[in-house]
Amino acid sequence: DNSLFFLIIGHYFKLWGGRFVGDTDPIMEKFNASIAYDKRMWDADIRGSKAYAKALEKAKLVTAEEKDYILHGMDQIHDEWAKGVFEVKPGDEDIHTANERRLKELIGEPAGKLHTGRSRNDQVVTDMRLWLRDAISILKGNALQLITTMVERAAVEIDVLFPGYTHMQRAQPIRWSHWILSHAVALSRDVEQLQEINRRVNVLPLGSGAIAGTPFNIDREMLRQELAFDDISINSMDATGQRDFIAEFLFWASLCLTHLSKMAEDLMLYSTKEFSFLTLSDAYSTGSSLMPQKKNADSLELIRSKAGRVFGRCAGFLMTLKGLPSTYNKDLQEDKEAMFDCFDTVHAVLQVTTGVVSTLKINPSVMEAALSPDMLATDLAYYLVRKGVPFRDAHGISGKAVFLAESKSIPLNQLTVEDLRTASPLFSSDVSAVWDYSSSVEQYSAPGGTAKSSVAAQVEHMRTWLKKQVQ
Amino acid sequence: DNSLFFLIIGHYFKLWGGRFVGDTDPIMEKFNASIAYDKRMWDADIRGSKAYAKALEKAKLVTAEEKDYILHGMDQIHDEWAKGVFEVKPGDEDIHTANERRLKELIGEPAGKLHTGRSRNDQVVTDMRLWLRDAISILKGNALQLITTMVERAAVEIDVLFPGYTHMQRAQPIRWSHWILSHAVALSRDVEQLQEINRRVNVLPLGSGAIAGTPFNIDREMLRQELAFDDISINSMDATGQRDFIAEFLFWASLCLTHLSKMAEDLMLYSTKEFSFLTLSDAYSTGSSLMPQKKNADSLELIRSKAGRVFGRCAGFLMTLKGLPSTYNKDLQEDKEAMFDCFDTVHAVLQVTTGVVSTLKINPSVMEAALSPDMLATDLAYYLVRKGVPFRDAHGISGKAVFLAESKSIPLNQLTVEDLRTASPLFSSDVSAVWDYSSSVEQYSAPGGTAKSSVAAQVEHMRTWLKKQVQ
Amino acid sequence: DNSLFFLIIGHYFKLWGGRFVGDTDPIMEKFNASIAYDKRMWDADIRGSKAYAKALEKAKLVTAEEKDYILHGMDQIHDEWAKGVFEVKPGDEDIHTANERRLKELIGEPAGKLHTGRSRNDQVVTDMRLWLRDAISILKGNALQLITTMVERAAVEIDVLFPGYTHMQRAQPIRWSHWILSHAVALSRDVEQLQEINRRVNVLPLGSGAIAGTPFNIDREMLRQELAFDDISINSMDATGQRDFIAEFLFWASLCLTHLSKMAEDLMLYSTKEFSFLTLSDAYSTGSSLMPQKKNADSLELIRSKAGRVFGRCAGFLMTLKGLPSTYNKDLQEDKEAMFDCFDTVHAVLQVTTGVVSTLKINPSVMEAALSPDMLATDLAYYLVRKGVPFRDAHGISGKAVFLAESKSIPLNQLTVEDLRTASPLFSSDVSAVWDYSSSVEQYSAPGGTAKSSVAAQVEHMRTWLKKQVQ
Amino acid sequence: DNSLFFLIIGHYFKLWGGRFVGDTDPIMEKFNASIAYDKRMWDADIRGSKAYAKALEKAKLVTAEEKDYILHGMDQIHDEWAKGVFEVKPGDEDIHTANERRLKELIGEPAGKLHTGRSRNDQVVTDMRLWLRDAISILKGNALQLITTMVERAAVEIDVLFPGYTHMQRAQPIRWSHWILSHAVALSRDVEQLQEINRRVNVLPLGSGAIAGTPFNIDREMLRQELAFDDISINSMDATGQRDFIAEFLFWASLCLTHLSKMAEDLMLYSTKEFSFLTLSDAYSTGSSLMPQKKNADSLELIRSKAGRVFGRCAGFLMTLKGLPSTYNKDLQEDKEAMFDCFDTVHAVLQVTTGVVSTLKINPSVMEAALSPDMLATDLAYYLVRKGVPFRDAHGISGKAVFLAESKSIPLNQLTVEDLRTASPLFSSDVSAVWDYSSSVEQYSAPGGTAKSSVAAQVEHMRTWLKKQVQ
Repeated sequence: DNSLFFLIIGHYFKLWGGRFVGDTDPIMEKFNASIAYDKRMWDADIRGSKAYAKALEKAKLVTAEEKDYILHGMDQIHDEWAKGVFEVKPGDEDIHTANERRLKELIGEPAGKLHTGRSRNDQVVTDMRLWLRDAISILKGNALQLITTMVERAAVEIDVLFPGYTHMQRAQPIRWSHWILSHAVALSRDVEQLQEINRRVNVLPLGSGAIAGTPFNIDREMLRQELAFDDISINSMDATGQRDFIAEFLFWASLCLTHLSKMAEDLMLYSTKEFSFLTLSDAYSTGSSLMPQKKNADSLELIRSKAGRVFGRCAGFLMTLKGLPSTYNKDLQEDKEAMFDCFDTVHAVLQVTTGVVSTLKINPSVMEAALSPDMLATDLAYYLVRKGVPFRDAHGISGKAVFLAESKSIPLNQLTVEDLRTASPLFSSDVSAVWDYSSSVEQYSAPGGTAKSSVAAQVEHMRTWLKKQVQ
Repeated sequence: DNSLFFLIIGHYFKLWGGRFVGDTDPIMEKFNASIAYDKRMWDADIRGSKAYAKALEKAKLVTAEEKDYILHGMDQIHDEWAKGVFEVKPGDEDIHTANERRLKELIGEPAGKLHTGRSRNDQVVTDMRLWLRDAISILKGNALQLITTMVERAAVEIDVLFPGYTHMQRAQPIRWSHWILSHAVALSRDVEQLQEINRRVNVLPLGSGAIAGTPFNIDREMLRQELAFDDISINSMDATGQRDFIAEFLFWASLCLTHLSKMAEDLMLYSTKEFSFLTLSDAYSTGSSLMPQKKNADSLELIRSKAGRVFGRCAGFLMTLKGLPSTYNKDLQEDKEAMFDCFDTVHAVLQVTTGVVSTLKINPSVMEAALSPDMLATDLAYYLVRKGVPFRDAHGISGKAVFLAESKSIPLNQLTVEDLRTASPLFSSDVSAVWDYSSSVEQYSAPGGTAKSSVAAQVEHMRTWLKKQVQ
Repeated sequence: DNSLFFLIIGHYFKLWGGRFVGDTDPIMEKFNASIAYDKRMWDADIRGSKAYAKALEKAKLVTAEEKDYILHGMDQIHDEWAKGVFEVKPGDEDIHTANERRLKELIGEPAGKLHTGRSRNDQVVTDMRLWLRDAISILKGNALQLITTMVERAAVEIDVLFPGYTHMQRAQPIRWSHWILSHAVALSRDVEQLQEINRRVNVLPLGSGAIAGTPFNIDREMLRQELAFDDISINSMDATGQRDFIAEFLFWASLCLTHLSKMAEDLMLYSTKEFSFLTLSDAYSTGSSLMPQKKNADSLELIRSKAGRVFGRCAGFLMTLKGLPSTYNKDLQEDKEAMFDCFDTVHAVLQVTTGVVSTLKINPSVMEAALSPDMLATDLAYYLVRKGVPFRDAHGISGKAVFLAESKSIPLNQLTVEDLRTASPLFSSDVSAVWDYSSSVEQYSAPGGTAKSSVAAQVEHMRTWLKKQVQ
Repeated sequence: DNSLFFLIIGHYFKLWGGRFVGDTDPIMEKFNASIAYDKRMWDADIRGSKAYAKALEKAKLVTAEEKDYILHGMDQIHDEWAKGVFEVKPGDEDIHTANERRLKELIGEPAGKLHTGRSRNDQVVTDMRLWLRDAISILKGNALQLITTMVERAAVEIDVLFPGYTHMQRAQPIRWSHWILSHAVALSRDVEQLQEINRRVNVLPLGSGAIAGTPFNIDREMLRQELAFDDISINSMDATGQRDFIAEFLFWASLCLTHLSKMAEDLMLYSTKEFSFLTLSDAYSTGSSLMPQKKNADSLELIRSKAGRVFGRCAGFLMTLKGLPSTYNKDLQEDKEAMFDCFDTVHAVLQVTTGVVSTLKINPSVMEAALSPDMLATDLAYYLVRKGVPFRDAHGISGKAVFLAESKSIPLNQLTVEDLRTASPLFSSDVSAVWDYSSSVEQYSAPGGTAKSSVAAQVEHMRTWLKKQVQ
């Protein structure tokens, strides 16, 4: 029997060198508290509590008078937050305890009834869903403004040609507007995905209690209507213990900013001295502390960098979720900072990108001057295809012509017909028509292509889509 | 002028110690080739090429006869793959070149016309979309089978009670079926999300060429119909350069397996000696090479582990995408192995989980014996709430009762009414009705709760949902 | 020629719907500024500038008097920060501009000489290295305190036996101290790795300028000594453009917290009602807003969750770094928040873990009662091995005995010798000696094993190691 | 009592729709097996078993004759693997069972003694450490070859000047060799870190059993010597349950390839038509299936992409590790594919990069022509600093000169002295000396700078370092 032995050990606890013996550990308390960040949900928390007070009245758990006290008290708390005078006190570990503590101060006993049948588990996730629903609405607005800017810019600058690149190498002549729209289309998918996520966000968990549900006649359908949710959650254990809607949102933010990192990379390339296709507005550039001549595209670099930041939040949260047992575990507290940070970041990035895109100046003459005859080598092959040569052979013949021009150190279009005939006898003088960038792009008139009609159709498609989004 | 200097350097190239000077570098070739894995798309590639041959005929780029040769040749190639006799040859760097090379061997010149106006850029992404569409359909089937298994098991075992846990601590009595359904509901969201992704997968990119679109009268609408896509892509640069549908799929797999990691963690806990709530079938357990008595829940550990694996694919691919310039870059070649691996993994995990869930045996008597009176402390508080005590006070009073029972080292339900009255005078003999687990759970009859009626309604909800999925 | 056309467009810029036209965009400014967080490096920035002022004097770029002005001004700024009265002004985009702006206010013209030959590029990375070096020293101290606590606890509680688990299933009897040490040993590797990282942190980049180096006779060796760096950076482009030391630190934090997530998971299991091996101090537990009886191990859940958080920072930063061109890009600004957050998190987690470990109470009688005879099935096999049976056969025979006991629903040690002989004739009455947990563990006396002598040796090993760390 | 009820349920098991009822589930078996990939460790497994057989003999658990049988049998198995004739059979779930099964076939009973006191838990991690130690040695060789190539190329091309970029904008003139060395220096840190990891890899876990250690007189020190490990593991639970060395290796691979993604990004920029600083060898470029003129830098894109791939493995594995309970869990089986894939990838990338770097051709005249007078704006400021102007003022004056030149649309160096005097009266005719790129770079002669002497010193530093690595 070791019990005496362990009794003695008790006296020597400090031998183990622990940093702390006592009733409370201030580091633990700080570590545990979320008020520093979850106070951003003050409004959602008040809305949730007001709706809940009404449901309590309907369930006869509070009287009409008590309900009115609660509603009135909550309105006062709302004003205090709105005016920035709400005072967070030492014991307020989160926004929910802070608001309830204040309610008690303001209205006394009825405040103690507000939490009847409710748990922080369903309360916190209700608040988050209310908050995120608003946040999504704001981000959708930001994204639509950016897309509108891009589409209208594409409409105006539709006549500008420049090199399309693949593998960062000049590939074929395209319209500048075709490039703009390629990014706008990606963003429109982001908006659609965001709306799908919103459907999964906009589901009422309130009335799930800690795990088992709510034991009183709380009318969840009434709560749903009060708080304008689309649906109510199906299972209380799932409702309180899942944060899928956060995970989805974090990934959405990651993919959206990955899109913008791609556009930023293109724009950075195009704004190098070497490309000189465009110039950023000074409002989105900065200078150097050392080099007076520098004008850096800091805005684009920041945009590019943020994809990593938000994906880090997503990766971190998924890792936190992995292998958790079901229902609420404190680990889930990682959800809020990730949500706020991703919202703030995407909110800023979308607006800055709109600013960048709407103010940058393109240099059409430089862009067009960057087109070179070798970019029409495919057209040269197509010339032969139209004369019946199988494309694989035509591709090979055109390749020979390219090689010949390189050997002679002349542009491809300065090969004579005789030169070309060494590669294929089918070349004749009408080959000269190939060397026209404007007609080249006009070939691509199928849907999605770079012909003017096709790009204009893309503009119209996007305009129609945009209209539907704001209805 | 340094040119002579650099001419001389040319002769001393090897001074730099490079591992290789020559026309080809075998490591580069292997590094570059994708045939080892993309051959899985052989069928999709053939389907895409057959449809394209028809479009070429319509555009008068091949004759009806040539088209028939191509279709017939493709059918032969199909047979060779199906029979496992297709021979991959050294130059076949990917499935597209392999199939075209073989076509040339089989039908000669018309093969050279198949690639007219097509680029590997639009070809490869068409193949991937066809392949993934089928894969998604299979995974949806696997998920529905698992959900069905869970829902029907929940229906049968609805009368079993056991402890619901939060923070891994016993919280409140719940139904075992309520637990099962909490996981089934999460999986049903996965199915819905998968279908949304599928809508973005099922879009035709063919006819986008390398970047600029297709220059001949290729009828993209006809291609769409031939290949049963829902839509055609809007912008050729986006169509060939984006892999959002892959990124979305990888994240979907990650979230789905995170759900299963959670269920596996619960089941692992429940199958420990200490909990002993359930026993896995031998088919899903393994022994130890050292310890004869061991029976390990390897299946559950494998399920839990795979969330990390697939999320790693997602993280890797997002990182690869970050900051890429637009249109096709070879970096995108990372898409396929990630897609295949995530499909294979989720495909296996869903099936193994179905096997585990359908064969495990629960131990209802142990489960019910794990319920203890302190889990009804909330009910004790509710007893007071029903007598008009504000919940916050009732919670405090119940807490005192818990403390009293602990001090006396007796279960909570063995406190006498007199004991309880030291905490509140409102306790009377009717408090004995609190100590009944079956009536406790029946309180939670609101939607989503653990009362029998509520759980039965959840079962019905899920059955209806399942029926809709297979229509 | 399109120039007129584009001149006209200029007037219609707003048509594109951009959110902003003007000289500055407040969102961009906020997005660009880092002062909100990099002000934490105020002390490092001042130290760096003071050292640089001395180097400027030695290079005759400032006079002795000017240097003294700068040093004195910097000391005043130091006081302002230390007292919390330093006022950040609107134009102060980062800590470097803030300190230099303030210096100018305090000492006038000589302040303008401080940045001679220095760039923000080498200044910022110097500050970060100074800051992180101190942070690492703090974390090392925290880790050593935790390890000490664990080792000394292991020394005191060396006689407690309990089940060792593999696959979450009872495997073999082990010492509780053996378990403690298994986690302490992992943490000692973390400390060693942290010191290796510190060697790469502790390298002076100052004197690298923006990219090309420093053009004046700045004595970098003198700077190194002044700032107590171990080495100076080898290449100025690398020095200003790399953040490997941050990436390494973020990964270190991730692996360290992954270790603690593992220990927390064990402790959570052991503190469930079902295991009841130990009880957390109230200081590290919290209650429930709904359930009066709950005592949740929130501290352990928070510890477990933070591995995800810090790895998210690591993943995000690596993704930001991926594919960046060399030298300084604004993307690198993501480095600081990640560094601060990981430091703060690990700093708190290590301290809370020390508190948890030093105050938790084990229940030795419950732990020992959890040992069961089937955990000695391997010993039964070894009994036969000692009688000459090949282990593979002995393993099989022991397995049969386990099966026999299960069939009879009796513990393994209650099989009679006759029962055992049905599995192997080599069993005789001396087999009874097998059923002793204390002698079982004493078999494992090889280094690393669970015998008392071996565990005691591990304690000594760790004590010696700890002593070396603080020398 | 529900037992009858559940007996009945037993008969209706299939009602639940499970996909499988039976003794074995083929999907589970495939899911569980690792032989498909862990057979790569056949040699390590044999080496480990041979050493173990010797330890068994010393412990008198096998006779000298039995040991010889085992060693001889293992040699035969080695030959079979080496010749590619080893036949994996259906029951061989991993390399360890395969080799032991074959040993049994070859030598009969003594084979059954080999596993005495050994567990798959310590066996597998011993094999992995042996395998990875060799792999690290190979990667170190690959990295040194690449660094050597870079350093020697830097030595030869030290006279080539070109623009140094920050923020992707031309910053200051630098030496091409300075750029090369900036990447070589980063790689040298990778080598150093790899060696540190190797010290943690090269530790013997054998003799740890499943969890508790080894119960016989297995001489772990003898095993260490036989297998040439540096140390033996301290704690058997840690030894069998940790995979830190894998996590560290995966992160190492990630950081190393992030370095190469950075170099690849630079090289891709420099090889665009717009920069035209260099041309890749044909051996590392590929053509386009559509565009005959294209020459794509596929090798660089592949290099860039792989950072994501390997980091994905790291992220996945960390997520798998997060929150696992201690000791061996089947989840750890994710370790091997990640290890193999990261080795293969880094092995290929390092070699391809060596090929790329050693065969690319630079275009010195284009590089030097890309230098422009505005890149000397800092030098213009330094001109004033040398005349006593505080740098901040000089920076401002130089900025005015840049603006003046831009207004006049002339290069900065074509401003007359009179023009310059409008910015500062200190300019005089000696300012013309500023406009010399060669003298500009020579200013940066401090350690790490871009002056010839400084770059030459960096070359020497690296050569010395390289020599030390191969000793």
